[in-house]
Amino acid sequence: MQQSIIATVDIVLLTLQQQRLSVTLIKRDNPPFQTMAALPGGYIHAQEDNNCLDAALRILSTKTGIVPPYLEQLQTFAGIARDPRGWSMSVVYFALVASEVITAAQHDGLVVCAVDDLWHLPFDHNDIIAAAVARIRNKSYYSSLPCYLAGPMFTLPGLQKIYEACLGESLNKVSFRRKMDELNVLEPVSGQTEAHGAHRPAQLYRLKAQFKNQLQLLSRGL
Amino acid sequence: MQQSIIATVDIVLLTLQQQRLSVTLIKRDNPPFQTMAALPGGYIHAQEDNNCLDAALRILSTKTGIVPPYLEQLQTFAGIARDPRGWSMSVVYFALVASEVITAAQHDGLVVCAVDDLWHLPFDHNDIIAAAVARIRNKSYYSSLPCYLAGPMFTLPGLQKIYEACLGESLNKVSFRRKMDELNVLEPVSGQTEAHGAHRPAQLYRLKAQFKNQLQLLSRGL
Repeated sequence: MQQSIIATVDIVLLTLQQQRLSVTLIKRDNPPFQTMAALPGGYIHAQEDNNCLDAALRILSTKTGIVPPYLEQLQTFAGIARDPRGWSMSVVYFALVASEVITAAQHDGLVVCAVDDLWHLPFDHNDIIAAAVARIRNKSYYSSLPCYLAGPMFTLPGLQKIYEACLGESLNKVSFRRKMDELNVLEPVSGQTEAHGAHRPAQLYRLKAQFKNQLQLLSRGL
Repeated sequence: MQQSIIATVDIVLLTLQQQRLSVTLIKRDNPPFQTMAALPGGYIHAQEDNNCLDAALRILSTKTGIVPPYLEQLQTFAGIARDPRGWSMSVVYFALVASEVITAAQHDGLVVCAVDDLWHLPFDHNDIIAAAVARIRNKSYYSSLPCYLAGPMFTLPGLQKIYEACLGESLNKVSFRRKMDELNVLEPVSGQTEAHGAHRPAQLYRLKAQFKNQLQLLSRGL
């Protein structure tokens, strides 16, 4: 016979704030750690959720009002030591959204904080965020993942800055553009440019419709 | 209040058999799917296992007698549809061992089958194995992971064949050796060579002690 195990889902919802990779925290309504900021999360509802992804989308929507375009399972954090209530397992998902999406959600109690400036968070949430950042950093080398951090329209120099914020390093402009061509997820928005001081206005791009909810991978990295 | 959720761990234990990536199945002792071959797995014991990795090692040791050098969390498979007993979550780990390790375990009811030749397995075990193979294939491009499939001593041509079996493609000998140098996980075994017909005997290598339980990654892939 199985002892009772707490089954939860937590979501690492990342965005860019002042060009820095940042995580969305929410004030906890209930004990333990009531009123402290932590990752949005909650119990799996076996009678309501068909699977963990369902649970993640339900919890994120209820607690933050946000429906991300792309949600990926990160890892399961589990054990006796991570939750004062008992043996718990949390299936963790991560999502990336443009900062406007979080602003527009207008939910009370949302806090966006740069991942490099975090204080000590409840449970093992610091470890969870570190694992999510490592995954994103790695995956940014060979996928369209950082594009989800951009708004609906962006310039190529703007997108390069987003990739650089994810990777934590500078990229060569020529090879970045070659890789974006190879990914083949972007299309120019006809007649839309962005003025940049004395420079020639930059063409605006957007994600092609079929890649708004689907990641594209490179066979070789950036 | 939370409804009851079944919390289990399953292990995808992979090896090479006739140069083909193969998975270890075990005859199930209990319902559901009693007597059918499936992945080794079992309930998490909250009073015994400190975390999921503990549970995976306990289950693998009890059911197969095998203690793998390296065990990595793959993904959690969960939901209402995958287990006839109810809403279940399985935290899945994968491990790679040399085929001699499975032979030496001498446990009854172990079946080793090429991953490309599998029949329909219980639960979502076919999906789980497919996900493990995809992870291994991807990770073999940039890590020492396939080395765990080799025995205690191996030649470089032998190790290249192992990498090729994981990747499902042929590799260039010169670039393979350069990447192995870069990984820097191997050492020649002094005075040990393997005869190959009319060819010059090949030097035997082994994993350096510090990499027997620890994966090494390349910054750029094979």
